[in-house]
Amino acid sequence: MRILVTGAAGMIGRKLVQRLLAEDGLGVHPIESLILHDVVRPEAGSAKVVALESDLSAPGEVEALVAHRPDLIVHLAGVVSGEAERNFDLGYRVNLDGTRALLEAVRAAGLAPRVVYASTEAVFGRPFPDVIPDDLAPQPLTSYGTQKLIGEALINDWSRRGLIDGVSIRFPTICVRPGKPNAAASGFFSGIIREPLVGLPAVLPVPRDVVHTMASPRAAVGFILHAATMDTAPLGARRAVIPPGVAVSVGEEIEALRAVAGDKAVALIEERPDPAVWAIVETWAKAFEAKRGRDLGFEAEGSFDEILQVHIEDELGGRVPN
Amino acid sequence: MRILVTGAAGMIGRKLVQRLLAEDGLGVHPIESLILHDVVRPEAGSAKVVALESDLSAPGEVEALVAHRPDLIVHLAGVVSGEAERNFDLGYRVNLDGTRALLEAVRAAGLAPRVVYASTEAVFGRPFPDVIPDDLAPQPLTSYGTQKLIGEALINDWSRRGLIDGVSIRFPTICVRPGKPNAAASGFFSGIIREPLVGLPAVLPVPRDVVHTMASPRAAVGFILHAATMDTAPLGARRAVIPPGVAVSVGEEIEALRAVAGDKAVALIEERPDPAVWAIVETWAKAFEAKRGRDLGFEAEGSFDEILQVHIEDELGGRVPN
Repeated sequence: MRILVTGAAGMIGRKLVQRLLAEDGLGVHPIESLILHDVVRPEAGSAKVVALESDLSAPGEVEALVAHRPDLIVHLAGVVSGEAERNFDLGYRVNLDGTRALLEAVRAAGLAPRVVYASTEAVFGRPFPDVIPDDLAPQPLTSYGTQKLIGEALINDWSRRGLIDGVSIRFPTICVRPGKPNAAASGFFSGIIREPLVGLPAVLPVPRDVVHTMASPRAAVGFILHAATMDTAPLGARRAVIPPGVAVSVGEEIEALRAVAGDKAVALIEERPDPAVWAIVETWAKAFEAKRGRDLGFEAEGSFDEILQVHIEDELGGRVPN
Repeated sequence: MRILVTGAAGMIGRKLVQRLLAEDGLGVHPIESLILHDVVRPEAGSAKVVALESDLSAPGEVEALVAHRPDLIVHLAGVVSGEAERNFDLGYRVNLDGTRALLEAVRAAGLAPRVVYASTEAVFGRPFPDVIPDDLAPQPLTSYGTQKLIGEALINDWSRRGLIDGVSIRFPTICVRPGKPNAAASGFFSGIIREPLVGLPAVLPVPRDVVHTMASPRAAVGFILHAATMDTAPLGARRAVIPPGVAVSVGEEIEALRAVAGDKAVALIEERPDPAVWAIVETWAKAFEAKRGRDLGFEAEGSFDEILQVHIEDELGGRVPN
C-alpha cells in the first residue's frame, strides 16, 4: 500500500507516521511506501519513507505527490485558524486551492484513492445549541472554518462521482497537546494539564465552567486510521463525520489533574481571566451529539481521566514525574 | 446607483432588467447605469444600459465588469444543474471559479457592494424530512448543488469580513416558466400549465401526488429586489436564505388549471410516466419551513392559483386565450 500524508511534520502527522511505521501496515495491508509531505521536511525514519518538502499550493507540487500513485491520501496540511484569519490570501490559497489542486491531480491521474480529509468542528459557528446535532447546518464564523467546509463539499462531490473515496473528519480540540505552549487561543486546555504535570506554571484565562469537547492525540490518530480502513458504504454521499469526544469543563480537567498529581500540581495553575481569549472561546461549540460518528465506528476516550492517562503513557513514559 | 447583473440574458435576468428599467430605480435610488453581462449579448433597451458579452470565467473578464464600480451586483450567471452534472470541468469553472473570481475582483477593487447571489434549493439532497427546516445541513447530491453551496460559503465569509454585503437566495423551482418547453427534468411543472393554456398538448411524466415548492418568475424578481434593498443586519453572518414558496402537488396544479381554463385544457395533459424523470424528481425536496425567509421580509405567492394568475397577467396579457 502506498500512503501519502500531507502536513506530515505536524503533531498529528508525526504521530500517525510513527504508528504506521510501528505497525508496518494499515489494517491487513503492508506498507509499500509512505510519502510524507510538509512545508518543512518531515522526518524519514524508514527506508519506505519518501520525505518531501514544498508548498502544496505551488504549481506542479500536488502533481508531483500524486505521481507516487497513492492508494490512500491523508490530507492534514493546512494553514491554521488564527493564521487563516489574519492572512486571507494565504488561507484560501493553501486550505481551499491546495485541497482543490490535490483533488484535481488525483482525478487527472485517474486514481480513485481513499482520501481522509482533516476538517474541523469550527465549521460550526454560533448561535447553536449546547449539544450540536449531527444534521445541524454548519455556519462557520472564521475563514478557516469556511475553507474546511468548502473542502468537505468537494470531498463529498468527488466521492459521489467515484473520483475518490473520501472521509472528512471534523476534528475536535486535541488535548493534551504535547510540546511547548503555543499561541493558539485553545492552548490553555492542554497547558493547564501538560505544564503542571512536569512542575511548570500554567495560566487559565477563562472561567472553570467553560465546557469544550476534546480527544487525545492517540484518539485523533485512531480517527484517521478508522477513516482510512472503514467500509464507506454506510456514509452514502455524506462523507463528513463528527467523531466522538469528551465534553468536559475546565473544572473537571483540573480535578482529573488533582487525582493524578495532587494539590501541588493544581496550585501551579494561575487563574488570570483574559477577556481577549474569552471572547474567542465563548464562541466555540460545547458538545456534539456525534451519534453518527459513534455508529460508524469512530472511538474516543470516555472521560478526561482517560485523556490524561493517554498523555501520561504516550508523553511521560507512563508515570507522573515527582 | 450602478447595478451589475450577470446572467442578464436568462429568463430571470431579463425580467429583473425589465422591472428595473420600468421603475427606473431600485427603491429610492435612481439608476445611473445598468451593466448587463451574459455569454450571449443581453438586450440593451435603454441609454443607461451597458450590454456585455463574454465568458465570466475567462481571464480579465470579471475585472472588466467590476471596473464599472457597481454598488449592487446581482450574480445570476451559472451553468445549470444538468449541464454541470454532465460537464464536470465547465460546472466548476463557471459556477465556482467564476463566482470566486468575481468576489476577488470586488475585493481587489476595494468596493464593498451589495451582492445578491442566486443559490438553489438543490443545496439539499436526500434523505431529508418532508418539510425542510431552516437550519438543516445542506447535503447536495449534484455538482451544481455543491458549487452553489460553496458559493454561499464564500458569500458568507466575504460578508463577515465586510468585503461585500451579500445575500444568497436559495431559489425554488420557478413556475410557470414562459417560453418553449426545455430539457430540464423540472420542465413539466411549468409545461402542464403553460402549454394547455394556449391549446397545446403537454406530457406529465410523474404521478399526480408529487409535491414540489414553486414561486412565480415575478416572485423570483421580487426576492432579488428585496435582497438588494433589505437591511442585512438581521442576517448576521448567515447570508443564505430559503425564501417562501408554494408547496403544491401536480394534482393541485391541474385543478388550478381546470378552474381557469376548463376540462378542455386539462384534457391536453397526457399522463405518460417516465421512469428516468421520476428517478430525478423523487430525489427533490417537497417543502420548506422558510420561516426565516418570511421573517426577513421575502414574499411569494400564497397558492398555485395565484402563481397561475401571475402567469396569465405577465405572459398572456391578462386573459386565457379561447
